Amino acid sequence: MPHAETKPQTAPNLTAVLFGLSGCLVDFGAHTRLNSGHLAEHAEATPGALDSLRSLQLQQIPCAWLDELPPALSQSLAIALPEWVKPSQHLATINPWPAPNACWQALMELNVERLDGCVLVSGEPHLLQSGLNAGLWTIGLASCGSLCGLSPMQWQALSQQERDIKRGKATMQLFGLGVHSVIDHLGELDTCLADISLRRLKGEKP
Amino acid sequence: MPHAETKPQTAPNLTAVLFGLSGCLVDFGAHTRLNSGHLAEHAEATPGALDSLRSLQLQQIPCAWLDELPPALSQSLAIALPEWVKPSQHLATINPWPAPNACWQALMELNVERLDGCVLVSGEPHLLQSGLNAGLWTIGLASCGSLCGLSPMQWQALSQQERDIKRGKATMQLFGLGVHSVIDHLGELDTCLADISLRRLKGEKP
Repeated sequence: MPHAETKPQTAPNLTAVLFGLSGCLVDFGAHTRLNSGHLAEHAEATPGALDSLRSLQLQQIPCAWLDELPPALSQSLAIALPEWVKPSQHLATINPWPAPNACWQALMELNVERLDGCVLVSGEPHLLQSGLNAGLWTIGLASCGSLCGLSPMQWQALSQQERDIKRGKATMQLFGLGVHSVIDHLGELDTCLADISLRRLKGEKP
Repeated sequence: MPHAETKPQTAPNLTAVLFGLSGCLVDFGAHTRLNSGHLAEHAEATPGALDSLRSLQLQQIPCAWLDELPPALSQSLAIALPEWVKPSQHLATINPWPAPNACWQALMELNVERLDGCVLVSGEPHLLQSGLNAGLWTIGLASCGSLCGLSPMQWQALSQQERDIKRGKATMQLFGLGVHSVIDHLGELDTCLADISLRRLKGEKP
């Protein structure tokens, strides 16, 4: 007896991914944002950032970063990032986070055709709220954003238990905002985006 | 025995309503759009338009109209509309419908705080598609848009059966786009918005 062929449903590709800059792609602990100072070490990519971008590039998913820092400061922080990741122009006239404007502006600069399948990744509560207000899928970063607020060295100096407590507290705060997922750092982004694709396939909307 | 007090859940207020201009608030049949010509009669409000706007004003729901006609033409069409209904600036640089940009732009000009609860009403398939792409609730107008494309006099001259056939065909085309509701004309808008509020209350997302 012939078997019925089952055609596996494949999750639709994501439309675009927006990233925070300080405390997300670079500047682990968001010290530039918290202290308004800038050291060369803050321009270092956070763990998993460059691999995540490479993976998104292979899937031809357009990406941009956005931040509310002064443009010259943002640009110097973004120096280690690949050029194809678009900076979103920070307009002084735009309503600041948590208004949805900056996220819509970034999507328009990427020429996205639709909101469906657009994702924001950030460790900054105000930016995540802006993404929620704009109707995006939102992924919160627990350890490298401003809620933990520790430099890589300070973070490494903590005991495992101290890290777990800080991470757990930040995770609860991020879920409290209403974000769709929380991960520790960008090394977990691939898996998290695959999960969001699956949730979309099942009909969930952000 | 005391009765348990039941607190009725009330539907949350809508955030903002965007309207098409030609073939929606004014210019029944969208002749200005279809023929690029402009007669004074095209600036007449369509049935139910002014009452709908009044009802939204009483509920303090911000409204704007948008169109892709040349600005001078749009302004002369909008002459009969109350001033508090904001025109959305048509930027030549903006990606045209069905890109989501014009809808996001209009929402930003209204300073809306969130996408949630924003609605677009139009009889123009390309604008409705733009609204769907922007993540809005969308309400299609069957009889007064470009799909029927008849002036009020031409429409009145039809038999009831002829009108039903045209209206039915336009309704199917609009639902085919994926819009959330279809009504005949703006006289039915209040009921339709109440239905959308109820669907939101039940957790439905656009």
